Amino acid sequence: MAAPLFVGLDVGGTTMKAGVVDDEGQVYAAVNMPTEAHRGQEFGLNRMADTIVNAVVAARIDLDHIAAIGVATPGTMDLRAGVILDPPNLRPWQNVPVRKYIGDRFQKPTAFQNDANAAAMGEFWIGAGRGSHSMVLFTLGTGVGGGIVIGDLILEGEHSHGAELGHMKIEITNPRQCGCGRWGCLEAYASATAVVKRTLEHLEKESLSSLASYVSRPSELTARDIFNAADKGDAVADKIVEETAYYLAVGTTNMLHSIDPDMVVFGGGMTAAGTGFLRRIHNHVKHLAFPVPGEKCELRLAKLGSDAGCTGAAACGRLLHRQQRQN
Amino acid sequence: MAAPLFVGLDVGGTTMKAGVVDDEGQVYAAVNMPTEAHRGQEFGLNRMADTIVNAVVAARIDLDHIAAIGVATPGTMDLRAGVILDPPNLRPWQNVPVRKYIGDRFQKPTAFQNDANAAAMGEFWIGAGRGSHSMVLFTLGTGVGGGIVIGDLILEGEHSHGAELGHMKIEITNPRQCGCGRWGCLEAYASATAVVKRTLEHLEKESLSSLASYVSRPSELTARDIFNAADKGDAVADKIVEETAYYLAVGTTNMLHSIDPDMVVFGGGMTAAGTGFLRRIHNHVKHLAFPVPGEKCELRLAKLGSDAGCTGAAACGRLLHRQQRQN
Repeated sequence: MAAPLFVGLDVGGTTMKAGVVDDEGQVYAAVNMPTEAHRGQEFGLNRMADTIVNAVVAARIDLDHIAAIGVATPGTMDLRAGVILDPPNLRPWQNVPVRKYIGDRFQKPTAFQNDANAAAMGEFWIGAGRGSHSMVLFTLGTGVGGGIVIGDLILEGEHSHGAELGHMKIEITNPRQCGCGRWGCLEAYASATAVVKRTLEHLEKESLSSLASYVSRPSELTARDIFNAADKGDAVADKIVEETAYYLAVGTTNMLHSIDPDMVVFGGGMTAAGTGFLRRIHNHVKHLAFPVPGEKCELRLAKLGSDAGCTGAAACGRLLHRQQRQN
Repeated sequence: MAAPLFVGLDVGGTTMKAGVVDDEGQVYAAVNMPTEAHRGQEFGLNRMADTIVNAVVAARIDLDHIAAIGVATPGTMDLRAGVILDPPNLRPWQNVPVRKYIGDRFQKPTAFQNDANAAAMGEFWIGAGRGSHSMVLFTLGTGVGGGIVIGDLILEGEHSHGAELGHMKIEITNPRQCGCGRWGCLEAYASATAVVKRTLEHLEKESLSSLASYVSRPSELTARDIFNAADKGDAVADKIVEETAYYLAVGTTNMLHSIDPDMVVFGGGMTAAGTGFLRRIHNHVKHLAFPVPGEKCELRLAKLGSDAGCTGAAACGRLLHRQQRQN
């Protein structure tokens, strides 16, 4: 019998990506299609199915060779029910029975997962976390997401809110407001959005910076500009980057003192900042955390880039396939 | 064959307690003996064995009826190795091979666990957490401890630092120093010690309080005095209790946004404050947390009191016994 193949589908606010992945985690073929959530959820479910079919066609295989499917989506969800509830990035979708639809359509075992959890599973399986027993992922983009994997199990939580690591509170005296409306969340300090906001605040007070001109055109400033300016020695940018590393070290320390994983991985657009940024985080962790986990837990950059979601979704399909074969 | 019995031993800085526990979690007989750590670790290991034997004698059974033993201890430890490393509460012990010693001495399967983790397992098994699938315990005493149980598994962590919940950071701008030497830890805000310290600080500024006289005899003030004064309407005490509930709500929210358990339990001496205090914590959680876990996660007071440790240690022995029978 040929080794089983899986399809992972990662649904994003703008595009969705499906990949055919083999039992070793190699992506055979991946295709992107626009999500076009505004066209409604019936359209969206069809688009998911089409994207899966297109990936299978691109891989030049027959659907019969696919052992299981995994779908990862953003937004609030009920993981046990397999339903997206009210996803902010997929308006106007509501209560979309993704798992049942895809399962019925393809008549395959279908796993359903939160996108950050799926990315964590992808990195754990064949990315930066390969070989670890437990791993925490922070995804640093517009927001801060998270995923926790312990011994092949994703920590989904009882109400699908496991590993919402961007929303751990790190400040009580003078908390910043988060995009979620609440206060003091890690995301309000360490997302790309927060990095830009904090820089602009700083530039109001301190104009001696290569970034000073952005005060009059704030919407053009990106986190990448700030990291680049820091690399070139700009003192304001350097201070912001260092503080961002500190905030992430606080979040990491809280994971070291609760999950105590053997690896913490940072993914998402902001990790383009590279190993220098990782080193800054690690230096702070060594001061903030207890000596043993502070020394022994490895910190790494994610490896799979934009493939993490569909590879991880495929990994979830693969685990489901294995469980069903065991039972 | 008779139902199996277990012995749980909970070693504390002052006393140790052993109980014979049946398969339903009922404690048949429990005995306390002084730990007397200053007499050295050889003495301590013998004292552990004696305490176990005394509990078995008190239960009027034969050692042959004991299927497994569990031992819980405080301090830094290597759970996989079964060794206490350098326990602050058990000076001058160092690198004490507890699991091997007790296992060899009694020739029984022997589990070894951190005391707060064991207490969590006890509450999960037959206490406040009974019937839950996952549970987080905060123990509120001189310090703040924690335990996380997910589906019968204790989250020990890879380096025995799982659930060190007193040392999650909740403040970055103006952090208090913790007894651990680090800054901004939950314990520095919400332990009984911290409650007393914060009250004394407040009384320096605001002397209109029934507690005012304690400023000249600070060592006599206890957390219980403060909770009692709050119950009687003292405004300073009420403010301190309310703030303490808020800090614990922040810690709880961070668990809801990472572990997402179906129950959070508060144990330890400070929970003598009762259900009014629990309600205060819950009110803050509802504002701080996402709506779904904030509404659905239950908050409860621990039920087992000072039996939590030895019952939980017995539960760990029981799980080991079951695992060994399955393999």
